[in-house]
Amino acid sequence: MAVTKLIEYADASPEVRAVYDDIMAARKTDWVNNFWKALANDPVTLRRTWESIKQIMAPGALDPLTKEMVYVAVSVTNQCSYCIASHNAAARKRGMTDAMFHELMAVVGMANETNRLAAGYQVEIDDRFK
Amino acid sequence: MAVTKLIEYADASPEVRAVYDDIMAARKTDWVNNFWKALANDPVTLRRTWESIKQIMAPGALDPLTKEMVYVAVSVTNQCSYCIASHNAAARKRGMTDAMFHELMAVVGMANETNRLAAGYQVEIDDRFK
Amino acid sequence: MAVTKLIEYADASPEVRAVYDDIMAARKTDWVNNFWKALANDPVTLRRTWESIKQIMAPGALDPLTKEMVYVAVSVTNQCSYCIASHNAAARKRGMTDAMFHELMAVVGMANETNRLAAGYQVEIDDRFK
Amino acid sequence: MAVTKLIEYADASPEVRAVYDDIMAARKTDWVNNFWKALANDPVTLRRTWESIKQIMAPGALDPLTKEMVYVAVSVTNQCSYCIASHNAAARKRGMTDAMFHELMAVVGMANETNRLAAGYQVEIDDRFK
Amino acid sequence: MAVTKLIEYADASPEVRAVYDDIMAARKTDWVNNFWKALANDPVTLRRTWESIKQIMAPGALDPLTKEMVYVAVSVTNQCSYCIASHNAAARKRGMTDAMFHELMAVVGMANETNRLAAGYQVEIDDRFK
Amino acid sequence: MAVTKLIEYADASPEVRAVYDDIMAARKTDWVNNFWKALANDPVTLRRTWESIKQIMAPGALDPLTKEMVYVAVSVTNQCSYCIASHNAAARKRGMTDAMFHELMAVVGMANETNRLAAGYQVEIDDRFK
Repeated sequence: MAVTKLIEYADASPEVRAVYDDIMAARKTDWVNNFWKALANDPVTLRRTWESIKQIMAPGALDPLTKEMVYVAVSVTNQCSYCIASHNAAARKRGMTDAMFHELMAVVGMANETNRLAAGYQVEIDDRFK
Repeated sequence: MAVTKLIEYADASPEVRAVYDDIMAARKTDWVNNFWKALANDPVTLRRTWESIKQIMAPGALDPLTKEMVYVAVSVTNQCSYCIASHNAAARKRGMTDAMFHELMAVVGMANETNRLAAGYQVEIDDRFK
Repeated sequence: MAVTKLIEYADASPEVRAVYDDIMAARKTDWVNNFWKALANDPVTLRRTWESIKQIMAPGALDPLTKEMVYVAVSVTNQCSYCIASHNAAARKRGMTDAMFHELMAVVGMANETNRLAAGYQVEIDDRFK
Repeated sequence: MAVTKLIEYADASPEVRAVYDDIMAARKTDWVNNFWKALANDPVTLRRTWESIKQIMAPGALDPLTKEMVYVAVSVTNQCSYCIASHNAAARKRGMTDAMFHELMAVVGMANETNRLAAGYQVEIDDRFK
Repeated sequence: MAVTKLIEYADASPEVRAVYDDIMAARKTDWVNNFWKALANDPVTLRRTWESIKQIMAPGALDPLTKEMVYVAVSVTNQCSYCIASHNAAARKRGMTDAMFHELMAVVGMANETNRLAAGYQVEIDDRFK
Repeated sequence: MAVTKLIEYADASPEVRAVYDDIMAARKTDWVNNFWKALANDPVTLRRTWESIKQIMAPGALDPLTKEMVYVAVSVTNQCSYCIASHNAAARKRGMTDAMFHELMAVVGMANETNRLAAGYQVEIDDRFK
């Protein structure tokens, strides 16, 4: 199901094409995934979201692979199927192996479990953590 | 507020002390944080949870620092104050710098944003991601 | 996939038909969407849920369009595909334009982002907000 | 509890002060709330987040009060205490009355309820909504 | 912190007092907890919410203790501190022992973990479950 | 969509087969559902998760049916379609009737609603609940 019309490059306005071009250049690919084609219905949000992601996901104190794995961890926690699929692909492309994916899932699962144990037992924060 | 009574080492049963000893040995510290003292009310869950965490957080395909940062990312997404405080401390201990923390938060924030944009625009998963 | 059997009007009991009639009358339509046909398996919940929604979504201090957009915002935050699709349709029917939908999504995305930044940075509530 | 050090205006770098000044000018106030003082530890995120919020919350197809109420709705759904407190205050400032707040909460509560009924009953999306 | 003014019995209108009286009678207590005193600012929501809860939590196909434990499970999953505290108290009053609480928490923790493993591994629903 | 390859019994390693055999023996069935076939890509997580679930879901202070219904409640709250489908089936097998399912859903829906009312009204926890 896709209620939002996807804007293909051929049908895109110059401002949308400029973002598509930048996405493809930054990723060294010749295609744009559906997320951006849906956002393109709102060129302002398309531009702002892409500029933010490009800034945030660039190499810095954390490497791009770590960032993509964190993105997968959040998307899994939120049950966002689209984002799980797309960022899993992006993490693979950046070098995530099967073994890394398995350990990532184990940590995400465990964190979701202990988050609830901490809440359910109403654990007070230790002074040392404040 | 702390509804759950915290079990101190001095008052703990031998089976609980054994877990506390193992936690302190594994972490090379001389104290145990409140999460475990609360779980100690249920020695079976205490044991199982600690054994799972010990296995999952050990060095493997992912290093312990990356794992702790993923733990923080999940805890922040779930708004679990206790876990944010404790795993932030753990990540710091393993080498997370201010710069790394800032980038981690930026990725977590962005992922939570685009998870909703993908859902709200009802974006269909690209065939290439299946 | 639909595990829950949908109760069609022709097969419905008089008490379920009464709710269906009221839904169609209130909405000025000649059909009932699947949510209600699923709930009809439990006539008590069907009746209570419909009465609550009818009361809550009626014009009041907030107009019905604003209420439907808030409904979409919550459903997107919760990743509920059914509710996103149905309340998006309801909001459109009440006058939500493309431009309004785009701005709504931008706000929802941003709120989900800053909710996590506030949690991750463990920001203390300002005295002025208490 | 506030692990993150808050950066006061007097201690802020010129680039941080420039953002603070812009926030105060845009809001016609003479103070900056803790969220920004915490983000100021990362001037890049401070700048990007403020620029995004300024763009998104500006009057457009939706008026600023509606946007603030949507922000409250998301924050309540996510149980983010800081954001509930701060955006409730912002919505009040923009004209949200008690009656509007009460109706807003009623809609948010109801949406969270029916989001789960739709999921639990595994309701299939109606063809008319696709 | 409590932004919402709590309406005490002495200051309540007759319609609010009628709900308070009904709550105390149904619960065989002589006090009303803060949740209701906050909702009393909106008598319509107070009445509707109480009538719904009274209907839903009454003995039926599920006994009241099981219902209270399910309430705790949901509140823990959502990280709602108020609801964890109040429904934990209610479950205790209805007979939840320490052992039952511990097993409840173990199930809630595990479910939150496997919910993410299922999402992260993108597991397709078995035909037998459809 | 199923990105993760499912490991069938015929193709499984001895260590994976041992877990499958134990699952089938414990459940008195001759098949294994997709969740485990996906986890089997990571035999360590497969083994740990199964051992944990076997321990947690065994009869104890809470009976297995209550535990399965709590599992459904959490899965519905988290919008995890796979887990809703599989644990609903498991609860049915353990004796959950239509009437029980309907009441379960009513409680889950209500809890999700009041969780947000408590948060939105910023209700302070009663001293009696501390």
